[in-house]
Amino acid sequence: MTHHEIPATHLDLLDNPIPVALATVGATGYPQVTYIWVIRDGDTLVTSLTETRQKLKNLRARPQGTIFVVDPANPYRTLEVRGDVTITPDPGLETLTAVLAAYGTTLDAFAGPKDQRVTVRLQPTRVVTQG
Amino acid sequence: MTHHEIPATHLDLLDNPIPVALATVGATGYPQVTYIWVIRDGDTLVTSLTETRQKLKNLRARPQGTIFVVDPANPYRTLEVRGDVTITPDPGLETLTAVLAAYGTTLDAFAGPKDQRVTVRLQPTRVVTQG
Repeated sequence: MTHHEIPATHLDLLDNPIPVALATVGATGYPQVTYIWVIRDGDTLVTSLTETRQKLKNLRARPQGTIFVVDPANPYRTLEVRGDVTITPDPGLETLTAVLAAYGTTLDAFAGPKDQRVTVRLQPTRVVTQG
Repeated sequence: MTHHEIPATHLDLLDNPIPVALATVGATGYPQVTYIWVIRDGDTLVTSLTETRQKLKNLRARPQGTIFVVDPANPYRTLEVRGDVTITPDPGLETLTAVLAAYGTTLDAFAGPKDQRVTVRLQPTRVVTQG
């Protein structure tokens, strides 16, 4: 089914600490797909990325991304959220801290990079659910 | 790690009957991500689609696609295959039959559409593995 908002039937896929796939489009036209951690602010999906990553470079050049989530208990129950992306600095690491907390960890325990962190917000334009 | 071929360490993700994500790029620039069944012919990934589906229309217009697979036993073990796509008719349903067989079913049992079937082959140009 196609929606303009994320339907209540599939919100659980975003409110659980499971990695989600983020698709962006690279300069040569190929989609890039990687796994990220994401939290939800109403219908807006929020993540923390670093400036140096290819996916962020893709989103700066082409601010359209898609998040795809699969129910770990049922591979045919899926949620696809296409949306417009905005990118803002996160010098205080507030977004990174919130994302880590949602996935059960902390800034102190986080082994990844903490420099050049940005907040990436994806505002849905089209939502497709299966199952 | 980045490769030009699919490394032996991650071939099992393609040789098991698990759905894989296919990312294409739509006319308005948003990535589309859906789940498909896929088989392997050496390094080439092969699937069966129908002419009427949006993902096929995307691939006809922009023949660059990406397949992303996650290990069901470990969400941090992933395989991303970006590649160039070719599309040929499958009037005898040979490809559909082979894909169904790999996923444990048959043409007779298949409830999906059998008209306007095409063979989609994705030749890798870049392969990224995690885990």
